[in-house]
Amino acid sequence: MPPTKTLERLIMYRIVLEQNAAQGVTHLFSKDLADQTGSNPAQVRRDLMVVGYSGNPQKGYAVIDLIEKIRHMLEPAEGIPMTLIGIGNLGRAIVGHFNRLKPKFNLVATFDTDENKIGRVIAGCQCYHVNEIPKVLAPYIIQLGIITVPESYAQKAADQLIAAGVRGIANFAPTPIRVPAGVYLENMQLTLTFEKVAYFARSKISGGTV
Amino acid sequence: MPPTKTLERLIMYRIVLEQNAAQGVTHLFSKDLADQTGSNPAQVRRDLMVVGYSGNPQKGYAVIDLIEKIRHMLEPAEGIPMTLIGIGNLGRAIVGHFNRLKPKFNLVATFDTDENKIGRVIAGCQCYHVNEIPKVLAPYIIQLGIITVPESYAQKAADQLIAAGVRGIANFAPTPIRVPAGVYLENMQLTLTFEKVAYFARSKISGGTV
Repeated sequence: MPPTKTLERLIMYRIVLEQNAAQGVTHLFSKDLADQTGSNPAQVRRDLMVVGYSGNPQKGYAVIDLIEKIRHMLEPAEGIPMTLIGIGNLGRAIVGHFNRLKPKFNLVATFDTDENKIGRVIAGCQCYHVNEIPKVLAPYIIQLGIITVPESYAQKAADQLIAAGVRGIANFAPTPIRVPAGVYLENMQLTLTFEKVAYFARSKISGGTV
Repeated sequence: MPPTKTLERLIMYRIVLEQNAAQGVTHLFSKDLADQTGSNPAQVRRDLMVVGYSGNPQKGYAVIDLIEKIRHMLEPAEGIPMTLIGIGNLGRAIVGHFNRLKPKFNLVATFDTDENKIGRVIAGCQCYHVNEIPKVLAPYIIQLGIITVPESYAQKAADQLIAAGVRGIANFAPTPIRVPAGVYLENMQLTLTFEKVAYFARSKISGGTV
């Protein structure tokens, strides 16, 4: 299993490779991939060894082959079964986004506690009551549970997903949550990111580096 | 200037401290803060030295004082002037979120190219045409520019913000962008995060660690 940073770069390479493929580019050198992803050529070559792919020194990497190699590593053939709890503004935006990413991601259901939402198809996906999580998710091995609920419900939402067998969680609620060792968690506090960007922007402004 | 990771932890401590304050907690030990943020006590103590705060060995840290110390470091008294380009689903969700975070964040304007949106107040903030970026942003020193546009427009959006003096960018477009050295950039590719979570979730499932 590659380290997290390597995996992040591989995902980024694939995004850039797919853009190049869409523009008709057939081959790229490690330098091109490095330039387009903010990496460096030696790093690119090391990372691509992880997926077992080495380019041709004269022509570089074959774009389509390399996309396939990375896809094979990242994506189960049957797609990635996922779910989401909390179908507010952010939840809706994320669900809308994923509806364009089929069949790679397969959003099987969303959950909420609002009676006005339950039983309806929202942003293209059926919404159920959170009490139905065990029943609705039972047929699936969910690889990604997205939490977009208010702060007060975040830990409970995580606990409910984990009890239903979910082993990967992306938490967008504005509070950190805790998960047991067998669950992979990414805390995605947008406010944290925004405060961090603003902080370093101020240092750039006051430092006069521009 | 503290390292990025220290800054991220300080922001997280503040989130947790504010939750404790809201529940009437007046004092916390480094161990409590560590438990609630997934850190460890020695790390907490080192981090809090950066903000120049040391607790009382008997009573721990005074919650309100510590919040103020971190706030003083993170927040300019006048708030954080910010802007957003691309007022689609995700942009709308983010703008709605920030309207609840006033006066800390001050969203001065949003921008789009869709004539149906321009001139309207959307999610509580006036939307202008991207061509008006230089004029509308001129009175402000913008510390945070959020990009929520389609892939094809992402680099141009960044270039327009930077030309208008923005020195901190959070990019949610599904493609990496490039910025000059004097600009702080966070690439927030949600798909990347989701693929990563799913990947490690699969390894947790197959590894049988649960």
